[in-house]
Amino acid sequence: MSEVILLAHGAGGRKSADLIRDLFLRHFGNPALNVLGDSAVLEIPGGKVAFTTDSFVVDPLFFPGGDIGKLAVCGTVNDLAAAGARPLALSAAFILEEGLDLDTLERVVASMARTASEVGVPIVTGDTKVVPRGSADRIFITTSGIGIPFVAQRQTPPQPSPQRGGGYPPTLPPRCGEGWGGVCLCAPSPECAAQGDAVILSGTIADHGMAVMTCREGISFESEIESDCAPLDTLVASMLEACPDIHCLRDPTRGGVATSLNEIAVQSGVCIEIYEPAIPVNENVRVACELLGIDPLHVANEGKMLAIVPQECAEAVVEAMRAHPYGRRACVIGRVQERPAGRVHLRTALGSLRILDIPAGDLLPRIC
Amino acid sequence: MSEVILLAHGAGGRKSADLIRDLFLRHFGNPALNVLGDSAVLEIPGGKVAFTTDSFVVDPLFFPGGDIGKLAVCGTVNDLAAAGARPLALSAAFILEEGLDLDTLERVVASMARTASEVGVPIVTGDTKVVPRGSADRIFITTSGIGIPFVAQRQTPPQPSPQRGGGYPPTLPPRCGEGWGGVCLCAPSPECAAQGDAVILSGTIADHGMAVMTCREGISFESEIESDCAPLDTLVASMLEACPDIHCLRDPTRGGVATSLNEIAVQSGVCIEIYEPAIPVNENVRVACELLGIDPLHVANEGKMLAIVPQECAEAVVEAMRAHPYGRRACVIGRVQERPAGRVHLRTALGSLRILDIPAGDLLPRIC
Repeated sequence: MSEVILLAHGAGGRKSADLIRDLFLRHFGNPALNVLGDSAVLEIPGGKVAFTTDSFVVDPLFFPGGDIGKLAVCGTVNDLAAAGARPLALSAAFILEEGLDLDTLERVVASMARTASEVGVPIVTGDTKVVPRGSADRIFITTSGIGIPFVAQRQTPPQPSPQRGGGYPPTLPPRCGEGWGGVCLCAPSPECAAQGDAVILSGTIADHGMAVMTCREGISFESEIESDCAPLDTLVASMLEACPDIHCLRDPTRGGVATSLNEIAVQSGVCIEIYEPAIPVNENVRVACELLGIDPLHVANEGKMLAIVPQECAEAVVEAMRAHPYGRRACVIGRVQERPAGRVHLRTALGSLRILDIPAGDLLPRIC
Repeated sequence: MSEVILLAHGAGGRKSADLIRDLFLRHFGNPALNVLGDSAVLEIPGGKVAFTTDSFVVDPLFFPGGDIGKLAVCGTVNDLAAAGARPLALSAAFILEEGLDLDTLERVVASMARTASEVGVPIVTGDTKVVPRGSADRIFITTSGIGIPFVAQRQTPPQPSPQRGGGYPPTLPPRCGEGWGGVCLCAPSPECAAQGDAVILSGTIADHGMAVMTCREGISFESEIESDCAPLDTLVASMLEACPDIHCLRDPTRGGVATSLNEIAVQSGVCIEIYEPAIPVNENVRVACELLGIDPLHVANEGKMLAIVPQECAEAVVEAMRAHPYGRRACVIGRVQERPAGRVHLRTALGSLRILDIPAGDLLPRIC
């Protein structure tokens, strides 16, 4: 590790992963944390609970398609959704800079309230700290959330009925020790991708990152780039209804789709191959990325979901997603192969194959 | 409200209360938040869950008796304890300034891990953001926590037994609609203080605030002032074992004992009278407060618990506390009266009575 914190340590790429592994996992490591899911999933008396947290430091505070408040609610709702969980309650902790305009704060708070109300999740607890002028930049927000599984889980295995001759225990699914009836109860989890699975993406990529970046840098295009910032809880609910056995769900934020897929490939010990021409990118975003020399697969999204599902479910899941306002451009973008484990391959329009790595550097600081 | 955020908005006193009421409750208001407990208490399938969050921005990062990492774990553990909840899991979100020394970060992370390990609570999920140099001051940490009640709660009311002739429903407690068997199941809550209750404090006050302040300002005394920063989960567990019907628990942090008691007095609609000579203050802290013209009742604590308990339990609770390392100087400091509702009275050694108000100003910025 370098001896000081660099912007790259917070960019979601390789240096972020190093910091997590070499510092946080080394000191905090435990089974729930080590999974490195978007949420931790915990067993508590009465069932499973998903628990997640994220800090938001985006600059500017307001950008086309959203603001730090909407982002803070969507980000945490989407991390719960990525654990297959319905959001039950959020917390909100504010770090404010002395001298911040109260109107600005109120616009942000109103936006959080509006987004939380769209989701139907209450903000039940919070905190406010104020630091002297110059010790923070206007507003930082940390939201945490708890949720419970969308797919109802029986609390105890079904008991054999003496009258009907039993039938328990059922066959356990191959990758996971806690399921029955063919449904993997530990999924969705980044460890559950399996050979032959389809890789599904809910829509266009790189909208959020390029919206914030072009807004911050004052770059303008013929049509303004808008952030995709949106809460994906009901999208995920409809996906799980179409296929209760989704293997992985991932919210491809910092580091983009490339980072999320690499994390899944490593954690599941599989190779993921995606087809470049299948990946939807808005035209203005594609142009902006080309001009700035940025790979859209490395850029943050805030309203997209990656899903890895058994091949036989893929069509039903895509169909369910396309019926939802936040999944209209959903499509299959690739599939899971056995080898080489831990790799992501990108097949281009011309048929060549290249390794898709995670970004090394500090592409876009303060993007969320 | 003033038109910009002032340091006083984060100091835990009157301006903090105004901001919470006029901004956050107005936009976010819901039954769980409106209680304004140290944690929100939620009903989920299978039982109750306590949920809390706090950001930590203390300056300096290291001070006698603790550091920002220990504080971040204890603060959230104590907020759960104040809801009568055993900590199940914590989250940790870091906002780091570019250029921060990695050794400093590692000392903080190691301290968090050590404190979490003392408590036996895992840190299960987290986040790291890095902001450019000058956009934050070194390290801000936001921890959230979830917990379940120390006192086991039956999930369904006991059913009448036909053999034994029933006995259900029992008498409901006077202040709360969800209990049975004489135990108030909604307590501990700042709304549950009742006339005649005893007010108990777990030990000396103002140690944390004065330790940080004297350390930051470079003021030295004959004996160094040490923060009381400590996790109070097992202390609270032993208190609840001595008296399962504790009415209120409160962790008197920013704004000190004065603010916590005023909040309880308002929310429960009672008057709280405390006896000044009964309140334990370490001698060096008393001298420092006198020199600086600060009322120790207004100064933050990070390892103390206030409890309001039925009079008949007071002795047993104090005895249980004194048997615990973090409650050795526990004592009864006052009692709850009916009127005037919403007030805290301080009776002095000479017998005179004065109103104990919450601090108006920004006594001590970045104290936690």
